[in-house]
Amino acid sequence: MSAPLLALSRRLRNTPFTSRIEAFPVQAYTVYNHMLLPSRFRGLEEDYWHLRNAVQIWDVACERQVQIKGPDAQRLAQMLTVRDIRGFDVGRGGLVPLCDHEGRLLNDPVVFRIADDCYWFSISDSDVALWAGGLALGLGLDVEVTEPDVNPLAVQGRHSDDVLAKVFGDAIRSTKFFRFSTHEFRGHPLRIARSGWSAQGGFEIFVDDWEIGGLLYDAICEAGAEFEIGPGCPNLIERIEAGLMTYGTDITREHTPLEGGMEKYCSLDADVDAIGMAALRSQRAAGVTRRIIGVMADGERVPAQRDPWPIRLGSEVVGSITSITWSPRLQCNVGLGMVSASAADIGTSLVLDAPDGSRTATVCAVPFEGAAQR
Amino acid sequence: MSAPLLALSRRLRNTPFTSRIEAFPVQAYTVYNHMLLPSRFRGLEEDYWHLRNAVQIWDVACERQVQIKGPDAQRLAQMLTVRDIRGFDVGRGGLVPLCDHEGRLLNDPVVFRIADDCYWFSISDSDVALWAGGLALGLGLDVEVTEPDVNPLAVQGRHSDDVLAKVFGDAIRSTKFFRFSTHEFRGHPLRIARSGWSAQGGFEIFVDDWEIGGLLYDAICEAGAEFEIGPGCPNLIERIEAGLMTYGTDITREHTPLEGGMEKYCSLDADVDAIGMAALRSQRAAGVTRRIIGVMADGERVPAQRDPWPIRLGSEVVGSITSITWSPRLQCNVGLGMVSASAADIGTSLVLDAPDGSRTATVCAVPFEGAAQR
Repeated sequence: MSAPLLALSRRLRNTPFTSRIEAFPVQAYTVYNHMLLPSRFRGLEEDYWHLRNAVQIWDVACERQVQIKGPDAQRLAQMLTVRDIRGFDVGRGGLVPLCDHEGRLLNDPVVFRIADDCYWFSISDSDVALWAGGLALGLGLDVEVTEPDVNPLAVQGRHSDDVLAKVFGDAIRSTKFFRFSTHEFRGHPLRIARSGWSAQGGFEIFVDDWEIGGLLYDAICEAGAEFEIGPGCPNLIERIEAGLMTYGTDITREHTPLEGGMEKYCSLDADVDAIGMAALRSQRAAGVTRRIIGVMADGERVPAQRDPWPIRLGSEVVGSITSITWSPRLQCNVGLGMVSASAADIGTSLVLDAPDGSRTATVCAVPFEGAAQR
Repeated sequence: MSAPLLALSRRLRNTPFTSRIEAFPVQAYTVYNHMLLPSRFRGLEEDYWHLRNAVQIWDVACERQVQIKGPDAQRLAQMLTVRDIRGFDVGRGGLVPLCDHEGRLLNDPVVFRIADDCYWFSISDSDVALWAGGLALGLGLDVEVTEPDVNPLAVQGRHSDDVLAKVFGDAIRSTKFFRFSTHEFRGHPLRIARSGWSAQGGFEIFVDDWEIGGLLYDAICEAGAEFEIGPGCPNLIERIEAGLMTYGTDITREHTPLEGGMEKYCSLDADVDAIGMAALRSQRAAGVTRRIIGVMADGERVPAQRDPWPIRLGSEVVGSITSITWSPRLQCNVGLGMVSASAADIGTSLVLDAPDGSRTATVCAVPFEGAAQR
């Protein structure tokens, strides 16, 4: 079928930037953490080239913050993730897999330490506040788990530093990757991190005031006019090229972070008390039986994908491709998927059963170029 | 803006019935529990009249089941809700408010007792499995919390009994409200409850097999042809007329069930150990300061609503209307909202500031007719 309409209602929450992005207008939305996330403004490829060649402003308010605050904040934050975050000082962030007691992935947020006794988990699409709140209550911890009214606004693309320097001053340029510092806009302090869900570089601004948010959006657009700034959003082509997995699409509650290629974020040898750690250590010892891979697929441009497509090694189905698209830059189809570990070695030749026919798909290193991963 | 498109992806999960409802085709979707929920097939009013006058088959797979199973299942299930469910025997269901420790609403599911040691919470739009799972882990309870692959398929409307009797036999007619019994389709046992998210009467079938689900969908359509069955979905007009609140729209995490008109589902005098009970008892003692209301609003048909509209008592804003629509049957605008308790008495005359101008809105009893509430 052609794309259906989205029925708008209060339950699919607006953001401080909704009026701006609808004025452009946005063509398509998705829904993420019970909130509207723009999905397309011009067209998939047009958005892609604009992100790469110019600079974009992104309404990513749906990256909700789960705030853990109080005397037991550090203890709970560390219990939530199998990554050792004891060394995270105030201002530092990083990607942290959250697992259940069987090591299965519940979310893959970026956590920032906001204060000695306060963390913000900038979450993917699941209600982490309920998980953390249930744990805190069950364990009798002295923490408050809340979702503050914080709405991230991202600027992504090669000109991000130049744009934000015009708004906040040159100090913004010295922000390190996955670090935040505080900058003023109209006298209002805002936390700004060098982070974001593209490999093009840029910032995320944690907007905690709706009126300031709207004014800031306009000020960034004005400052960015010389760089052809315009609204954008996480882009399917760009994220696949960069090897950025989506929770719920490429990795799900069925998978562990070891299967999802997140070994480097799992501190399996650290002496920390984290949910899922024992299960992941067992899995490591037994050997991981399936892995996320990148593939380049031969032939003409693949059709738009909605469901996973099966992928075979010879006649045996060994997994599926969960995200795939034509890369107009690489001039081939690039995809991400999950296959048996025995079929996951780089260079393995597989057969992808796409709806329009079968194609050879070769396992490749990701990112498909030397782009940084979030 | 006109309605935007919904960008489809694996993360917005399909259901066993997606191919059927897209063939009709569905006009608009919403997203609910990370899953596609049809929102319109013909047009809002056309769908309304079809639901009232004929009979509809609903893809409500998004009503996910959170299964709590194990020796401590009864204890955890009771902790989760402030309604005394000790008397729920196997086969019985009922609406149960789930609260946090401050009495704020996390979800308003229908729970069914599936076995002595097993409950299914048929949830509204929040990840209750994470809340229940976090609690179970924190408390060290001997239960498993899972989301089984169960996809409810509803039949709603005055001819529901006749349609299902043709598929499952006449025994289905004796099903009591909020009770389920097990019936076979092609040798496959299915739990079927008299329940559903309309006031027109009908059933919900808990489909636990995708292939059976597709065949059942077709069999119900064939059986229902003489009653002009067709696809449908929870309908804005019908649900407002019936006084059926939506979690996330009319009541949210900010509200308690006492504010949300759910007193009868709060067993505040029962000797049960439930999260939020103490807070609700305190709120009852102090007096509830805001309440959900129904209103009938004068004047022409209101425009389609997206955000809450403020409502005044004289010049003072006393709350907002969160759902409102033109009722083609009652020939007036009917709405639901939340206002200060002092403005909530039936008959109170308020002023609704709609985008197209102000109107008199009178507080009315809900349901707007004598329809049964879920």
